[in-house]
Amino acid sequence: MTKTAAIVGGGVIGGGWAARFMLNGWDVKIFDPDPQSQRKIDAVLENARCALPGLTDIALPEEGSITHCDTIAKAVSGGELIVEAVPERLDVKHKVYAEIEAANTTGIIASSTSGIMPSDLQSELKNPERLIVAHPFNPVYLLPLVELVAGKQTDEAHIEKAKEIYSSIGMHPLHCRVEIEGFLSDRLQEALWREALWLLKDGVATAEELDAAIAYGPGLRWAQMGTMQTFHLAGGEGGMRAMLAMFGPCLKWPWTKLMDVPELTDDFVEMVGDQCDTQSGALTPRDLERVRDTNLVGIIRSLRGGDWGAGATAKSHDAQLAKLNGLNVKAADLDEHQQIVTSKRTVPLDWVDYNGHMNEARYLQAFGDATDKFMEMIGCDSDYIATGGSYFTAETHIRHIDEVRAGARIDVKTQVLLGEGKKMHLWHEMYEGTRLLATAEHMLIHVSLETRRPSNPSGAIETALTRIAQGHAALPRPEAAGASVGVRA
Amino acid sequence: MTKTAAIVGGGVIGGGWAARFMLNGWDVKIFDPDPQSQRKIDAVLENARCALPGLTDIALPEEGSITHCDTIAKAVSGGELIVEAVPERLDVKHKVYAEIEAANTTGIIASSTSGIMPSDLQSELKNPERLIVAHPFNPVYLLPLVELVAGKQTDEAHIEKAKEIYSSIGMHPLHCRVEIEGFLSDRLQEALWREALWLLKDGVATAEELDAAIAYGPGLRWAQMGTMQTFHLAGGEGGMRAMLAMFGPCLKWPWTKLMDVPELTDDFVEMVGDQCDTQSGALTPRDLERVRDTNLVGIIRSLRGGDWGAGATAKSHDAQLAKLNGLNVKAADLDEHQQIVTSKRTVPLDWVDYNGHMNEARYLQAFGDATDKFMEMIGCDSDYIATGGSYFTAETHIRHIDEVRAGARIDVKTQVLLGEGKKMHLWHEMYEGTRLLATAEHMLIHVSLETRRPSNPSGAIETALTRIAQGHAALPRPEAAGASVGVRA
Repeated sequence: MTKTAAIVGGGVIGGGWAARFMLNGWDVKIFDPDPQSQRKIDAVLENARCALPGLTDIALPEEGSITHCDTIAKAVSGGELIVEAVPERLDVKHKVYAEIEAANTTGIIASSTSGIMPSDLQSELKNPERLIVAHPFNPVYLLPLVELVAGKQTDEAHIEKAKEIYSSIGMHPLHCRVEIEGFLSDRLQEALWREALWLLKDGVATAEELDAAIAYGPGLRWAQMGTMQTFHLAGGEGGMRAMLAMFGPCLKWPWTKLMDVPELTDDFVEMVGDQCDTQSGALTPRDLERVRDTNLVGIIRSLRGGDWGAGATAKSHDAQLAKLNGLNVKAADLDEHQQIVTSKRTVPLDWVDYNGHMNEARYLQAFGDATDKFMEMIGCDSDYIATGGSYFTAETHIRHIDEVRAGARIDVKTQVLLGEGKKMHLWHEMYEGTRLLATAEHMLIHVSLETRRPSNPSGAIETALTRIAQGHAALPRPEAAGASVGVRA
Repeated sequence: MTKTAAIVGGGVIGGGWAARFMLNGWDVKIFDPDPQSQRKIDAVLENARCALPGLTDIALPEEGSITHCDTIAKAVSGGELIVEAVPERLDVKHKVYAEIEAANTTGIIASSTSGIMPSDLQSELKNPERLIVAHPFNPVYLLPLVELVAGKQTDEAHIEKAKEIYSSIGMHPLHCRVEIEGFLSDRLQEALWREALWLLKDGVATAEELDAAIAYGPGLRWAQMGTMQTFHLAGGEGGMRAMLAMFGPCLKWPWTKLMDVPELTDDFVEMVGDQCDTQSGALTPRDLERVRDTNLVGIIRSLRGGDWGAGATAKSHDAQLAKLNGLNVKAADLDEHQQIVTSKRTVPLDWVDYNGHMNEARYLQAFGDATDKFMEMIGCDSDYIATGGSYFTAETHIRHIDEVRAGARIDVKTQVLLGEGKKMHLWHEMYEGTRLLATAEHMLIHVSLETRRPSNPSGAIETALTRIAQGHAALPRPEAAGASVGVRA
């Protein structure tokens, strides 16, 4: 059943929310008084469509709809979740909440505020128990973190419900258990930003140098571990205790400025703005967004390998999406009379090469993942592999029929050409819609992971594989099966 | 000619330096009074050998030697670079420098200090002009950042020399032009860490929650852009100026603690240490290092795609390594009487899958890179591709002969089976030493990138390709060429 999210405020954050919900199958109704709002949100959607679906190895559901409304009342009417993403002024937010309450009395009101306490936000509401803070991070359609904070009058059941909702759209809800201004993430970010502004103000470094001081060093650690676990490792075998003994004293040295803030004079703002423009060279903010998104997809996907951090979030989203896409089929339920759908996914941004299309190696990655899924379906899953048996690919033949680009939805269908004893001979076809992109023919051999030599699969696997192979023997044999490079079958 | 680095102090940082220099072909002499030093450094080397060489797509030079010395004098004698990595106490450092000066009067003395001013470090030296700060980041063998800082008495020529040295070992030297305590990166990190310690002390959050507040959100941004460029983007179309207008006021709100530091009582240190242990679960610091290194290799490699940040550093290191490995061959210099070496590289940590060996798709990635290198050699390089011509792979046949693991050095040799008009038919063999790992047969077609249809290559490319193809026709034809899946040739 389609769910509906209302979004009040369509700036960078509201637009990002719209994209994330819509791409996860929610209908979205949005209100923003800016006449440019629709154009700006369309630009966000365009970026998000190429980027977000590539985080998971399984396709997102069908897109929901986006409706632009000309009043708050129309946007929030009937919504079960009302996202507030208006400017960070308490008086503005209170006014918006009053309009929301006039049109919707039951939906969760989730403020995107970066730091205002939910108790202050809910103070004038008629139904204050339904207000929570759900603080996201830009770009909202890619970064998994959302901080959930309850105010004094919030019903904790809404926090639990919110955890479910945000997890279902691929996010990592972090419940901030103690209500403080700035919550957790912005406290940490703000401390760093304030210090950076001082260094600019004092002429110690430029914006570009300050960014280099992060991006080539600590930032690469922070993408996977926070500052605590990072320093736990920097302490060597003694861990955090050794680190505190070593660097604790430095914390008392004047290594940072006081908590004062540089006066944001026009001159200072211009200087910082100029430095940011210089740093970005010929790249506009829109160009930079594309760069950033491609990098983020690459970074998050790289964390999938170890099932770590944001990569683990994406993988657990896969598990939900596999069900939605009907890819969680048990061996006994496989229909041996037709090709088996073993993959439904979207080409990630970082899979494209200098020729402007999906790189050849990524075809094999997608086919390899389809093979893994088929193995899982017939019982050769991670539990089985942990017992010491698996399949190794001995040979592969790929034919590239047509090109495909980032953001395209691709499906793989699989036919068993032979399944007998240790051998599994597979035929994959990759499509975008009805357009055939590529075929792959693989010979796999079952092995013992201990001896690394061929061995027989379990009886259950052999039974399942044999049944499919026998059924598929009745299907037309693919014309190109058995072909060699350069020879048309 | 082999260069020699002396390293005084063999802890986490000194060991990391030893690994980075040694893996880049430098001989390393090391002094540390800890009787466990050699064991600890061997553990670092083991991690580094698997991790660092995978950042580049071209193999590092032959390893240098490591010599453990029992005096500072023996370690530093004759070294052109003397790395100091002893505890952060000025009196200890001064004592060490006196011993260094007694045995070496010409080498650059590069302190790894995290924040002590070089003017204070050099104050008692006889030759103070040769002291610089070269501040690295843990793990030193993977993170490219090194902050270079001159003291009042430092000869700036040594800073320039240091930039060359650190670039040659794959690092990103950041010259901190104004000498301040904590330099740039640690000022920013320290501001964040101090705030984190307050949040722990005040019982607002646990170490794990604080780390989640970074790693699932801002940290993913910081791996590629610093805080300035990140906020430049968060400002939407108005960039940093809009961001300062929007969030500048919040900087004056009490969103962070004052600059005081929580008292590091035994109880507090124990609490933080316990939380870090809990967060890491069953993983020891050593296990976590492996996780971190695999993630870092994946993150940095993901940034190679857009030639961005730490990925750009790794790519520019490639360019240096290609020369060292003799892979920068011009078309006219290619010997058509033998197979052509098109790749020398190391299997990256993140290329290994659940079967414990290099994933099948990574074989095609390595073969695809070898094809790219061969294209470049015959003149189909990035400049040519920018004019609108390129080769697309039409078909691929891979045979997996043997397994290979992370950290292994692999080479690819290439034979042209056909090079005629639009067609290029290649045969690759992948080896670890003399062990054949896999073969790949590719049919490529020259295309126009505008029409996406087959087209003739430039005259220069056709001439080069034809000459190699004619020469290679006299080589024995690979037995398995032309084979199809499941059929032994």
